[in-house]
Amino acid sequence: MSTNMSLSEISWADFQALSLLEKGAYFQGTPPHTLIAQQFTRAKLDELCTLATRIKRINKRREGANYLKTLLSDKRAMLYFAQPSSRTYLSHNAACQILGLDTMDVRDSKTSSEVKGESPEDTIRTFSSYADMIIMRHPVGGFAERVAWMLAHTNREIPVLNAGSGADQHPTQALLDVYTLERSFEKIGGIDGKSVVFVGDLARGRTVRSLAWMLTQYKDVTLYFVAPESLQIGQDILDLLDAAGTNYVVTQDFTSIMPIADAIYMTRIQDEWDVAGQGRTTGSSDYHIGAEDMHLLKDTTAILHPLPRREEISTDIDNDPRAVYWRQMRNGMWIRAALILTTFGRQDEANKYYDDYKPAS
Amino acid sequence: MSTNMSLSEISWADFQALSLLEKGAYFQGTPPHTLIAQQFTRAKLDELCTLATRIKRINKRREGANYLKTLLSDKRAMLYFAQPSSRTYLSHNAACQILGLDTMDVRDSKTSSEVKGESPEDTIRTFSSYADMIIMRHPVGGFAERVAWMLAHTNREIPVLNAGSGADQHPTQALLDVYTLERSFEKIGGIDGKSVVFVGDLARGRTVRSLAWMLTQYKDVTLYFVAPESLQIGQDILDLLDAAGTNYVVTQDFTSIMPIADAIYMTRIQDEWDVAGQGRTTGSSDYHIGAEDMHLLKDTTAILHPLPRREEISTDIDNDPRAVYWRQMRNGMWIRAALILTTFGRQDEANKYYDDYKPAS
Amino acid sequence: MSTNMSLSEISWADFQALSLLEKGAYFQGTPPHTLIAQQFTRAKLDELCTLATRIKRINKRREGANYLKTLLSDKRAMLYFAQPSSRTYLSHNAACQILGLDTMDVRDSKTSSEVKGESPEDTIRTFSSYADMIIMRHPVGGFAERVAWMLAHTNREIPVLNAGSGADQHPTQALLDVYTLERSFEKIGGIDGKSVVFVGDLARGRTVRSLAWMLTQYKDVTLYFVAPESLQIGQDILDLLDAAGTNYVVTQDFTSIMPIADAIYMTRIQDEWDVAGQGRTTGSSDYHIGAEDMHLLKDTTAILHPLPRREEISTDIDNDPRAVYWRQMRNGMWIRAALILTTFGRQDEANKYYDDYKPAS
Repeated sequence: MSTNMSLSEISWADFQALSLLEKGAYFQGTPPHTLIAQQFTRAKLDELCTLATRIKRINKRREGANYLKTLLSDKRAMLYFAQPSSRTYLSHNAACQILGLDTMDVRDSKTSSEVKGESPEDTIRTFSSYADMIIMRHPVGGFAERVAWMLAHTNREIPVLNAGSGADQHPTQALLDVYTLERSFEKIGGIDGKSVVFVGDLARGRTVRSLAWMLTQYKDVTLYFVAPESLQIGQDILDLLDAAGTNYVVTQDFTSIMPIADAIYMTRIQDEWDVAGQGRTTGSSDYHIGAEDMHLLKDTTAILHPLPRREEISTDIDNDPRAVYWRQMRNGMWIRAALILTTFGRQDEANKYYDDYKPAS
Repeated sequence: MSTNMSLSEISWADFQALSLLEKGAYFQGTPPHTLIAQQFTRAKLDELCTLATRIKRINKRREGANYLKTLLSDKRAMLYFAQPSSRTYLSHNAACQILGLDTMDVRDSKTSSEVKGESPEDTIRTFSSYADMIIMRHPVGGFAERVAWMLAHTNREIPVLNAGSGADQHPTQALLDVYTLERSFEKIGGIDGKSVVFVGDLARGRTVRSLAWMLTQYKDVTLYFVAPESLQIGQDILDLLDAAGTNYVVTQDFTSIMPIADAIYMTRIQDEWDVAGQGRTTGSSDYHIGAEDMHLLKDTTAILHPLPRREEISTDIDNDPRAVYWRQMRNGMWIRAALILTTFGRQDEANKYYDDYKPAS
Repeated sequence: MSTNMSLSEISWADFQALSLLEKGAYFQGTPPHTLIAQQFTRAKLDELCTLATRIKRINKRREGANYLKTLLSDKRAMLYFAQPSSRTYLSHNAACQILGLDTMDVRDSKTSSEVKGESPEDTIRTFSSYADMIIMRHPVGGFAERVAWMLAHTNREIPVLNAGSGADQHPTQALLDVYTLERSFEKIGGIDGKSVVFVGDLARGRTVRSLAWMLTQYKDVTLYFVAPESLQIGQDILDLLDAAGTNYVVTQDFTSIMPIADAIYMTRIQDEWDVAGQGRTTGSSDYHIGAEDMHLLKDTTAILHPLPRREEISTDIDNDPRAVYWRQMRNGMWIRAALILTTFGRQDEANKYYDDYKPAS
């Protein structure tokens, strides 16, 4: 697209000075990179959600699953998880396998080369040498962006997929959250116009911040932020919602919000919270959902959670159809498959197969 | 089958109260689970042994090996080894690869989610989300059963294969032992009527206990238990043999038994034995086999060992045709492939291919 | 070939007494093993280099890449890395994937069986049981040879590929270095007649020693060894060059050699050097190459490095076309694919495909 900017034509200093929204334009090139939540437009989100559902349906039949495995069978992905995360690793690995994409992995926090004094840039350029795509998780914020920029300045730029980078960005988590909302509201008009309630530790989770931003891409949504004062959503996000014209409510009262929620996004209140002694006066039970609360909810309310959970959702409700957090997990696999296929520009092949064979839903 | 019981219709408390033999009926459903040695009937053992040999023969030719890889190419298996075991991991991994079943693995004792306070049930439900089958090894006895029961109470029950769970159950090890006996006695009438001698640490090994039980499924076998008193087979197993009407002899004298053995099943005398000071008066050399003993054995005697070994079998006899422990290792791969294929109900496809092409033995 | 010797017909003591050149004749059997740099003849090197380039070209097209994956799709390789090495592991893994060869891996320095008192020979025989090839890296010098010899004395000998064994041998590194030189000199007459300059720590690196030996297979090459006195190339290598009639120069003056170099092979000066206090009087900057040196070089000079690097090559020259060390990394993948395919004797299939379809370069 003519409006796309090239990562190879900007200095690192100039690139870093860009806003998140400005950066997005630099990731749509050839190859495209997936680095930040802010790079996804509504059109892109709709395209990915539709493709994810098609892949899921094609996969249901044996011949369909075997067909999907031909789509990227000529490619290899490198999964570099410098920060351990079993579920994110497995979800990406499964997404690759669905598409027949061979995977290699490094799941150590310390690689042997780092021990030998190699720079992180050299390490990752090495890993990228053997693959056609790199899926990476790294403790340093912005490192995935740095890698994409660095590879754009070599003669072998391959797509970088950020599977979690530092405290801020985990764009595919936000994608799977949006996809889960989209699926949950499939028969009631989609995400537009819905009320989405965020509960728990809203101050630190990159998940909530990214999803809140993505929801500004939808029409007439209202966001509710329910948390003890010390863990409330940051003002930077509220400013962003204001700028986007998205309605929101900030409150500590979960019970009164339950009946109007179309979706409830629960989050884990982290250890650090207790350690710091923040919010001691507020019982965590106020930010909990269990069997006793279910009668307050609409029949169509979707309960999400990025998992792992601790006490904030009772296992008693796991089999309630409104508890979608386990489906949410599998949705991550389908939306990542859609994203990876699109990264290699082969989504049209899957769409044509779908149109030709029309697998049952 | 109408006699099968459903795991989803029994409470965990009621299920735990069942005997091993009663439990077996609950694992034959859709999907079937492989959890305990006691779930295998003679008919099932015969079916699996026959299928294992057919898979092995089909695999010998290049086109056959490529055919086998189409059988489960639309499926994915999760290998979760919370307790490290290279050989069990590799054997299952190879079995999956033979059938074209994609694998993902978690081989850490600590996963990142456990660190975050997630329950073991949630962790494994997460892992199961991405796969069509879970192959698991876990230090906690009964945990694999718990997982199968738990998944049966969700809307996404996938087969669980127990690759070692606590001190008691390692059903696929017993399967490969039976298969190795079956192969060793192929030209002399099979397992029925044979004398099988167990030697070494019989008190603790789950291997011996499981195999002893499985051998009650065969006609007119006699079991010999040769061990120092402190390491002898438990009374619970002898009670079980009595109940099944299986003949057995308990002795400390290996040498006198050697000439009548059709199979000798050696086991490793474990470190703990020495630590505990048990059996110090009995030299471990009494429970050893070496080149000097081979003239005492029949020409057809099969020497098995679950491996790893230490001193109890001399490497001098490794190339004697009666030493089948290395073949036993590979047999584990073939019988696991047969088991996994059967788990997905596609054994008829392999059987048809075999009948059509009749690969040479 | 009638001149080949069989590993199964020589005792371990006699085998160990052979020279490296004599040993080579024992690795050409069925199956062939890749154990030492000295087993490669010029004819073999030429064959592998040609095949590597053909595989690389076939792989460029989607149908070609999918074709390559059928070549070894009926086989499985075991990657046993008792000594961690991400890049060597990944390179071999990618080579296997290019050919459709399924891989299993053990990347722990301690396996569970070793803990149980198993001998290293038993451990590796176990691992070999499940695979059709073993690719291994081990800290003990000569261990890969020992494994090949041991397997030759069983009824299931599979090919062993040494991916680094102790301080001396890493034959596929030497292969990729030769292949990189061959590719770099493709349009200027190949390696024959060229000047190759080795710089840095020449005393310890097995890389330099192996490559120097391989270059004796080429006509009229001149080798330059540029290093501080304490890190100079060993007399044993010089004796070997003398015996082969290969010209060489030993010097400390890098700058004067730069203009005549056809290739410069930089190496990392290791930590131990500083620790030992060796060569303190020589600044490491003398054995460094950076942007300020590039005007001294020919337009066609190739700069190689086995990587990882530290300070000896400035990142400023990474995008200079003469800096081939990143291509060198990928070359490792192609030459290893060629080697593995040849190990299974299926190179003719790839050659025929190439001749039939003539992929563009």
